Amino acid sequence: MTSLLPVPETRVLAVASHVVSGYVGNKIAVFTLQSLGCDVAALNTVQFSNHTGYRQWQGTKSTAQEITALYEGLQSAYLDDFDMMLSGYIPGAEAVNAVGAIAKALKEKNRENFFWVLDPVMGDNGRLYVAEDVVPAYRGLVPYADLILPNQFEAELLSGVAIKDMASLTAAIQALHDTYKIPHVVITSVTLPHAPEDLPSSAGKHLSVVGSTMTSAGQARLFKIVFPAINCYFSGTGDMFAALMVVRMREAVSAVPGLGGTTSWQSGDDVATLELPLAKAAEKTLASMHELLSRTSERMGQVVEKTMRGMTEDDKKDDKKMHLVKSKAAELQLVRNPDCLRDPKVQFRAKEM
Amino acid sequence: MTSLLPVPETRVLAVASHVVSGYVGNKIAVFTLQSLGCDVAALNTVQFSNHTGYRQWQGTKSTAQEITALYEGLQSAYLDDFDMMLSGYIPGAEAVNAVGAIAKALKEKNRENFFWVLDPVMGDNGRLYVAEDVVPAYRGLVPYADLILPNQFEAELLSGVAIKDMASLTAAIQALHDTYKIPHVVITSVTLPHAPEDLPSSAGKHLSVVGSTMTSAGQARLFKIVFPAINCYFSGTGDMFAALMVVRMREAVSAVPGLGGTTSWQSGDDVATLELPLAKAAEKTLASMHELLSRTSERMGQVVEKTMRGMTEDDKKDDKKMHLVKSKAAELQLVRNPDCLRDPKVQFRAKEM
Repeated sequence: MTSLLPVPETRVLAVASHVVSGYVGNKIAVFTLQSLGCDVAALNTVQFSNHTGYRQWQGTKSTAQEITALYEGLQSAYLDDFDMMLSGYIPGAEAVNAVGAIAKALKEKNRENFFWVLDPVMGDNGRLYVAEDVVPAYRGLVPYADLILPNQFEAELLSGVAIKDMASLTAAIQALHDTYKIPHVVITSVTLPHAPEDLPSSAGKHLSVVGSTMTSAGQARLFKIVFPAINCYFSGTGDMFAALMVVRMREAVSAVPGLGGTTSWQSGDDVATLELPLAKAAEKTLASMHELLSRTSERMGQVVEKTMRGMTEDDKKDDKKMHLVKSKAAELQLVRNPDCLRDPKVQFRAKEM
Repeated sequence: MTSLLPVPETRVLAVASHVVSGYVGNKIAVFTLQSLGCDVAALNTVQFSNHTGYRQWQGTKSTAQEITALYEGLQSAYLDDFDMMLSGYIPGAEAVNAVGAIAKALKEKNRENFFWVLDPVMGDNGRLYVAEDVVPAYRGLVPYADLILPNQFEAELLSGVAIKDMASLTAAIQALHDTYKIPHVVITSVTLPHAPEDLPSSAGKHLSVVGSTMTSAGQARLFKIVFPAINCYFSGTGDMFAALMVVRMREAVSAVPGLGGTTSWQSGDDVATLELPLAKAAEKTLASMHELLSRTSERMGQVVEKTMRGMTEDDKKDDKKMHLVKSKAAELQLVRNPDCLRDPKVQFRAKEM
């Protein structure tokens, strides 16, 4: 079976939130990584009953001290031999800095063979959902990351560039390379309009991801992948996207002799944009995501119906309660659809920009 | 893909410990359950850097209040629609009772379609590793469980019968049925000697599991499965065994028309011992376990060697440090061997006793 796994032995430290029920943060990332053969150390930054999109939850957050202590536990037991790290939601600036210190220690220990994928979770759609001091904390950490996965709003916060069109989006990516010397960037869920020639054949609304691996001179090599949007608000998609990028980046880099042993896996300047491991990783990642979101969306009606069977007529008229039901129905249906992970059929290809 | 999963849609509440690195408690149980298609709500009773068999660790325990609050969070968001529950390590009597209250609430809500697999984690090899008041707490909860999975020592604590030979072992199981009306019992890792005719062909040390589903009159229907021991101290095997029993019991019961909708899935008195879903579930579970432990054992040398490369000569002479290395090497290698879960080849068959 080992030979069917896409990556060589890969030990990943995954730092993100844990929810008892449902699939966001480490709850979706850990299963995704494990299913594709990664040995995952899962450091949970919170334990909540469910994700906050339900608008009600119970649970506790880990403090910066607790996060640091857990890492020290690993370190003193020879358990800090990580090839990669994935960081997602971290509660508060102090905890963000504690996680940053872990990444720095791991990079220091293993400069040529350690790769940090940083999802700088700060907000979305123009709204910050963390404390304001988290923003400068992330700005201080990006220079230590190898790949960052901001959404459009987070890319604005980190780059200082207002993104209004494709020109300003590419300017933002160049600014990220310039300011932080960050080698790899992917901006997720870009909602800007696309030129008709960039659209796949299907009708309806489209989204894109835009990525770049910089050259040795710090020049962006830009690609984008346009894909049809599914008209539903899912949670955990960013976390699953990030986990898939960890695996698919490792896979694509492993296919290039010698690249894995270089700092930050930065392809030579002679590598064409569409041949970049980052572009290939993003294609496979989106293929898995699109397939899973389609299947989740097909099942939603059934979940709503089943859950409503246990509700009173009054509850069914209560908007807050119906919001809970819809949130439950939008949970990613990964455990029943594991083939979405293993066998993604790439339909949407990267294009040079 | 759904059709390749062994169980119909199954929502499981898994309550156990979480370790950042390695594979015990929920860290092994959740991946096992998810890989076989269960939607798992994972309520973590501790978050430790690594399991306590390393003899050093960092981390925090959840209080009884925190456990209860997490469950209330689920309940108030329509997320308590569980088909099954698996409970493992719970820190302290108060927390054990909090978990018991959750199980009682779920059973109350869904008497014919809820099944609680209780692993009464208290100790092993004659030694208690929990506080003394945990023992009466578990004694109070066993009547609400559907299947319990004590090891030999825990079976003694619950039954009050000293287990010295096969006769006293079967007396202990009958006492468990009599005292607690618990329908299904499996005693794991029984080290009693076996009659030569019970041994499989392979030489060396053997272990067994002994199980029973009681008749409507409360009579034990006893079976045992003898299998070759692997000469190594693994951690997490009990937790993985329990997770597999959840899936395989659900699978075996689903294959019997009508059985799934009956209280505690208790087979009719006309069902022969070796046809019991419990016996079939135990066979498949042991097949997976044996395969995985064999593969883990084959890889141990490599893990030791790789870890020792980063050690100083002084560290290599330090028994405590070498114990850490060996503990790491004995972590279950499940993520690289997922076929052990999906495709277990049953070599060791249940026999009537």
